[in-house]
Amino acid sequence: MGGDHAPAQTVAGAVAAVRDGVPVLLVGDRELLRPLIPAGVDLPIHHAPGLVAMDTHRPVAAVRATPEPSVTAAMRLVREGDACAAVSCGHTGATMAAGLLVLGRLPGVERPAITLLVPRTDGGRLTVLDLGANVDSRPQHLVQFAAMGHAFAQAVAGLAAPRVGLLSNGEEPGKGDERVREAGPLLAASSLPFVGNVEPTAAFRGACDVLVCDGFVGNVMLKTVEATAEVVTHILREEILHHPSAKAGAWLIRPALRRVRDRTDYTSQGGALLLGVQGVVVVGHGRSDATAVRSALRYAARCAEEGLVDRVERALATLSGGATGPLAAPLAGGEDLQ
Amino acid sequence: MGGDHAPAQTVAGAVAAVRDGVPVLLVGDRELLRPLIPAGVDLPIHHAPGLVAMDTHRPVAAVRATPEPSVTAAMRLVREGDACAAVSCGHTGATMAAGLLVLGRLPGVERPAITLLVPRTDGGRLTVLDLGANVDSRPQHLVQFAAMGHAFAQAVAGLAAPRVGLLSNGEEPGKGDERVREAGPLLAASSLPFVGNVEPTAAFRGACDVLVCDGFVGNVMLKTVEATAEVVTHILREEILHHPSAKAGAWLIRPALRRVRDRTDYTSQGGALLLGVQGVVVVGHGRSDATAVRSALRYAARCAEEGLVDRVERALATLSGGATGPLAAPLAGGEDLQ
Repeated sequence: MGGDHAPAQTVAGAVAAVRDGVPVLLVGDRELLRPLIPAGVDLPIHHAPGLVAMDTHRPVAAVRATPEPSVTAAMRLVREGDACAAVSCGHTGATMAAGLLVLGRLPGVERPAITLLVPRTDGGRLTVLDLGANVDSRPQHLVQFAAMGHAFAQAVAGLAAPRVGLLSNGEEPGKGDERVREAGPLLAASSLPFVGNVEPTAAFRGACDVLVCDGFVGNVMLKTVEATAEVVTHILREEILHHPSAKAGAWLIRPALRRVRDRTDYTSQGGALLLGVQGVVVVGHGRSDATAVRSALRYAARCAEEGLVDRVERALATLSGGATGPLAAPLAGGEDLQ
Repeated sequence: MGGDHAPAQTVAGAVAAVRDGVPVLLVGDRELLRPLIPAGVDLPIHHAPGLVAMDTHRPVAAVRATPEPSVTAAMRLVREGDACAAVSCGHTGATMAAGLLVLGRLPGVERPAITLLVPRTDGGRLTVLDLGANVDSRPQHLVQFAAMGHAFAQAVAGLAAPRVGLLSNGEEPGKGDERVREAGPLLAASSLPFVGNVEPTAAFRGACDVLVCDGFVGNVMLKTVEATAEVVTHILREEILHHPSAKAGAWLIRPALRRVRDRTDYTSQGGALLLGVQGVVVVGHGRSDATAVRSALRYAARCAEEGLVDRVERALATLSGGATGPLAAPLAGGEDLQ
């Protein structure tokens, strides 16, 4: 039910996923959803008429509201074993809050992390976390992110030996802000294959496979990628419009530009994962169209098939002692759910 | 003497700037520099044979070494009134350290800030600071950055009423990490035209004219812009090479692509400024070629002509009380010079 193009595009994406062989259960208002399902498509509906407003600033209250919002109902289906993963393109904060409150955290996880696979220049893909689930992380949280990201890169990105880097403003061990300077030695002392501080430029060239950071800087980084792509495209369009010969050239490279967009648009990869909760939760982009929804559903199915949650749980259990620290108290009021 | 292409390209850039009417004084090893100056070009040399190694990890010690490195000598010329600005394409940390140690900070500045003008999609330019002079800034430092950036945007970017934004992971006042949540109210209470929290995407679209942030996140943002441009270009080249018709198109849009690069490459705008010290200091990119060096020299001359340092000093003096706080002790050992 959530997202800028729901429910028409979300249902169309679900239909496409079913045709791909992914069993899907729609969660939302039956009266609105049923007319959108073509005859002969096996797409059951779990009726949950509640909605989270896309512009709410109080996601925790919203997911606890009555009637139960569809995103909360979806998490409940995962918790009770009626679904193996939940996908939402609705309010990101609400999806995180519902995942956290209904599914709960894995043992050893103090804070879940938004995780994304992004393309690198060397043809590989970089696992980045946290992209905004939390701010003001403590150093040990970055170690937990590293363990979760490492397990994810093995299970989903298909890497036998992913290397872990720590996002920083310089490569030498003394670089970084206070959090990074403290997390470095913890990561070096852990059982993870830690390659040290990594700058964004080096990370995108392949200096590491998993890049960990606090959610504030990670979120700024993610949005800077979007903003840069936008600025470059805008200036390119301007330059092309002012030069007739370039116009013809632009027409010829249109298919290439489209493939560039497909390869750099993370929605085509299925969206982001909320790692660290007791279930597979895919956080799709609010702008998702049917293609993105279909990718997100396939991605969620794949994560479940690969046993991602069990693997993340085992990775956290085998983290070398001390770095994980005691479990924190449950989140109060969701202040750090961004 | 500093930079990847020094001294040949730096001297060539200086010669071009002199021909543009910018009086330039070279600072470095006379024996190396003199043969590079064409006959008839008025380009005096201040002899300073010392050098800072581009790969030093101890910039503060390096700028204090004997014989005096050229970057230290250049700052001394500014302090003594023999030059109105200093430009260096050498080690960034050493340029900052020399600027800070020789010129000193302006009254009311606890920490100087690396400041850059970057292009926006609306055709305007965004002043961003701090891009890496300091990490672990306190909230009042962000207020000082805002005052400096506002004065810079008026003096150099030519804006009558620049709007100040605070870099964050969300627009609502409650968003941001601890530093941002504390700086927001300080900025709102100041005399500056503060528009609130701004995300990178909104900032690049024109939501503000001055964007302030801690140097850690600012540096990550700057390097993410570089990395993204690299990834997009790389993927575009790959796609074009695999499709013959796209190849012809690529040839036709080559001039447009070159102009895109010129408009997005910040070295073409003259490099970054170290704001907050008692003099104009331009930090050029290590990769600078003659064109970039020429731009940096013209930019430095323009900043001096506009009375930038006086204007920044006045802006800090008129900051509404309380936000500036007491002057901190001098930097100890330069640990926070990144």
